[in-house]
Amino acid sequence: MEPGPAEPGPCLSGPSGADQAAGAEPGRRALAVAAVLPAGGCGERMGVPTPKQFCPILERPLISYTLQALERVCWIKDIVVVVTGGNMEAMKNIIEKYQHKHISLVEAGVTRHRSIFNGLKALAGDQPDSALCKPEVVIIHDAVRPFVEEEILLNVVTAAKEHGAAGAIRPLVSTVISPSADGCLDHSLERARHRASEMPQAFLFDVIYEAYQQCSDYDLEFGTECLQLALKYCHIKAKLVEGSPDLWKVTYKRDLYAAESIIKERISQEVCIVMDTKEDRGRVGHLLEEVLKNELNRVKVTSGALCHAGRDLQQIILEQCYSFVCVNVMTADFQETQKLLSMLEESDLSILYPVVVVSVHFLDFKLVPLSQKMENLTRIGELAKEVRKRNILLFGLLIYYPQDEQKLQESLRQGAIIISALIKERNSGLVGQLLVA
Amino acid sequence: MEPGPAEPGPCLSGPSGADQAAGAEPGRRALAVAAVLPAGGCGERMGVPTPKQFCPILERPLISYTLQALERVCWIKDIVVVVTGGNMEAMKNIIEKYQHKHISLVEAGVTRHRSIFNGLKALAGDQPDSALCKPEVVIIHDAVRPFVEEEILLNVVTAAKEHGAAGAIRPLVSTVISPSADGCLDHSLERARHRASEMPQAFLFDVIYEAYQQCSDYDLEFGTECLQLALKYCHIKAKLVEGSPDLWKVTYKRDLYAAESIIKERISQEVCIVMDTKEDRGRVGHLLEEVLKNELNRVKVTSGALCHAGRDLQQIILEQCYSFVCVNVMTADFQETQKLLSMLEESDLSILYPVVVVSVHFLDFKLVPLSQKMENLTRIGELAKEVRKRNILLFGLLIYYPQDEQKLQESLRQGAIIISALIKERNSGLVGQLLVA
Repeated sequence: MEPGPAEPGPCLSGPSGADQAAGAEPGRRALAVAAVLPAGGCGERMGVPTPKQFCPILERPLISYTLQALERVCWIKDIVVVVTGGNMEAMKNIIEKYQHKHISLVEAGVTRHRSIFNGLKALAGDQPDSALCKPEVVIIHDAVRPFVEEEILLNVVTAAKEHGAAGAIRPLVSTVISPSADGCLDHSLERARHRASEMPQAFLFDVIYEAYQQCSDYDLEFGTECLQLALKYCHIKAKLVEGSPDLWKVTYKRDLYAAESIIKERISQEVCIVMDTKEDRGRVGHLLEEVLKNELNRVKVTSGALCHAGRDLQQIILEQCYSFVCVNVMTADFQETQKLLSMLEESDLSILYPVVVVSVHFLDFKLVPLSQKMENLTRIGELAKEVRKRNILLFGLLIYYPQDEQKLQESLRQGAIIISALIKERNSGLVGQLLVA
Repeated sequence: MEPGPAEPGPCLSGPSGADQAAGAEPGRRALAVAAVLPAGGCGERMGVPTPKQFCPILERPLISYTLQALERVCWIKDIVVVVTGGNMEAMKNIIEKYQHKHISLVEAGVTRHRSIFNGLKALAGDQPDSALCKPEVVIIHDAVRPFVEEEILLNVVTAAKEHGAAGAIRPLVSTVISPSADGCLDHSLERARHRASEMPQAFLFDVIYEAYQQCSDYDLEFGTECLQLALKYCHIKAKLVEGSPDLWKVTYKRDLYAAESIIKERISQEVCIVMDTKEDRGRVGHLLEEVLKNELNRVKVTSGALCHAGRDLQQIILEQCYSFVCVNVMTADFQETQKLLSMLEESDLSILYPVVVVSVHFLDFKLVPLSQKMENLTRIGELAKEVRKRNILLFGLLIYYPQDEQKLQESLRQGAIIISALIKERNSGLVGQLLVA
C-alpha cells in the first residue's frame, strides 16, 4: 500500500534526516526548509464557482489535504500559504478546524508569480513583524496537488541544495503541437524529448528570491514557470526529478472526482474488527474476519472484550485506521459499539476523515424473534445521528446466523460484501441504517 | 445537462445532417464517414494488468462506452476497431454483449501507427474479402476517450473536408520543458503558444492513406502524431479545433475513477417516480417528489397506476432514464414494483447501464404493526437477487408515515436523501436492502 496522505512520514531532521536532504555528513546541523503554497487562483477551469483549492472532498477543502501532506514532513519548518484577501478568513477557519500547524498566511498578488513573490518576501526575514526565519531551501508547491509524497519533496530539496534549483517532471500524456497564426498545425514536438513540468519545485532561497527581485513585470504577469525565472535571471539550470503520477494537478471537475476516489481508497484499506473472543459464539467473529479478508485488501484485527483491549485499540486509532467493524455477540443491543464510539469520540481521529463504524449483530431466529431484536436495534438511527456530528458514520448490520454451516458461511460472505461496500463508499446518506445479510 | 453518452444525437445524415458535415447544400448526397479506433495498447501506465480500454466501469469495459459514443452518431457508417490477436475474442464478446453495431475488427500492429494503418487498409477497399466501402473522410479516435461528443466529431470532419486534416486540441495544463542531456532544464516552452493534441482527428481518406503508405519505418515505429504524418508526407496543414475538457484520455488509474464518477453522475440526473394518484394517500407520492427535487438536479415524474401508465413509462424507458422510484401505497407488498421490474426486464434498458429501482413503502404504525409489514417486505432480498442478473439494482425503502405534518415532511426528506444516495452511488453491494427513513 502506498502511504496515505494522513500517515506521518519518518522524521528526517537530525542526524539521518534533513542532513540527508542537505547532502551533509550525519551530525551536521539540520537544513532549514520552508514551503510556499500559492493558493490565490480562482479555478476558472473547474466550471464551478468555488476556487478549486477550496472545493470539498469528503466535506474537507482540498487545500487541507495538501497542507496535511506537507505538515507530516517534519523537516519542513514553515508553510507559507498565499491566499486572496477575500479568502483569508475562510483559510483561517480551515487551519483552525483541521488543526494545521506551522502555517503563515500571506496575501496573494494578482498573478501566480506575484503571489509566490509575496510568499518569499514573508520568508526573507526583512519584514519587521515577521516571525519567520529565512530558510536555506524553499519548496514551492501547488495547493491543488494533495498527493505529494515525502520522497519527492526530499528529492527536489536535495537536488536544489546541489544545483540551486530543482523541479518534478512527468512524461507527456499528449503530443504537444505549435499552432500557426491561422489556427493550423505549424509543427508537432517530439514527445520523447519533452516533459511536463510539475510541482513540487525547490530552490536555494537566495537564488529564487534574487530571481524574483530581478524579474521583469512582463514575466511577473505572464510567466508560468519558476524554473525558467531561475534560469533567466540567475543562470541556474534546474535539476529535473522524475515524479510519480500522483503529483498531478487538480484542474477539472473530473480531477476532484478522481481525488475523492483515491482518498476513499486509501482510508479504506485497513479495517479493525473489534470483538469478544471469550464468548462461544465469538468464533463467528473470526469467521467474519476470514471472509472480510477476501473482500478487502488488508484487514487488521483486534480481538478481546473492549474493556480489556483499550490499549490495543488506542494504538490502532493512533495508527490512523478509519474503518471499524464492531461485533456484538454477547448483547442484543449496542453495548460494545457504544464503548468503541466513546473511544473514537475522545480521540482526534475523525477530524481529518470520516470514520466508518459498522455495528454487527447476529440474528438467530430460534433464540430471539426478529421483531424483538429489531425493536432494540432501531435505536441505531438516533445513535448514528448523534455521532454523525463528530464525523463518525455509523451503520448497523444484522447477520443471519443459521445452524447450517454452509448457510452460515453464505450469510457471512453476504455480510462481508455489505461491510466492504459501506467502508469503500463512506456514504453519509445511509448512516443509521440497519442492513441485513 | 450535457447529453449523456447514452443519448442518441440528432441524425445528421440526409438533407440537414451529413451534408452539413460535408459543407454541402441541403439535398446533396451524404458524406461517407468512417472511424478507426486503435485499441491495441497494453495500458502500461495504468499500473494494472488489464489494458485500460478493457478495464470495467460499472462492470462494462471502457471501450464499450467509446463505441457507444461513436455509434449514436448516425452519419458514421463504419467503425473499425483495431485490437491485438490476443484480445480479438474478448472484443467479439463485448460487441455481442452490448449489442454494438457497424463494427469491424482488424488485427493490431506492434505500434499505434501500424495499428491505425491496418485499420485504414481495411477501409481502403482493396482487400478482396472486405465488406467495407472506402469513406471520403475518416475519423481517428482513441478507445480510451469515451466522452467524445457529436459536436466535436462534426467539427473535425467538417474541417477535414475543407483542409484535408483536422484535430482536436486543448490548452496545456502544465508548462512543457525541454531537458538537456544531463537531466537539467534546457528551456521551457511558452505555455500560451503551445497546445495539447487530443483526439478525435479527421482526414480526407486519400490524404491519410497516402501519408501512411509513404511513411518511413522510423515514423511507423516511433511517431505519435497522425497530424504530423499528413504534414510531412502530404504537406497538409491540419486545422486545429478547440475541444472540451471531456476529451481527455483515460491514462492512469485515477482517470478510471474520474470516468466512473462522470458516468454515474450522468445517468443519475433523471429520476422517474412511478405512483398511483387515485389513492387518497397518493399525495405522499407528490410530497416525496417535491422533496426529491431538492436533492436531485432534475426529476422527471410519471404518475398513475402502472397498468394505465404503461405507455408513458415505455416512453421514459425509451428516453433512457436509469433511475426509478416506485411508490407502493395501495399494497403492503411489491405489486407495483414487480410490474415495473417486468417492464424493465422486457426492455433493453439495463444492457448498457445498471438501472436503479427504489421500491418505496409507507409505514404507518397505527395501521400495520412493524413486524407484520416487515415480514412481507423481507422478500425483497430474493427479488433483488433475481433482477440483479439483468443489471437491475433493487432497493427497498420504508418511509415512516406519521399523522403529524411536520414529522411527515422530515421523514420524506430523510427518504429523499436515501434515494439520492442509492441512485448516485449505484452500489451493487447493497441491493436487496430494506432501508428506513
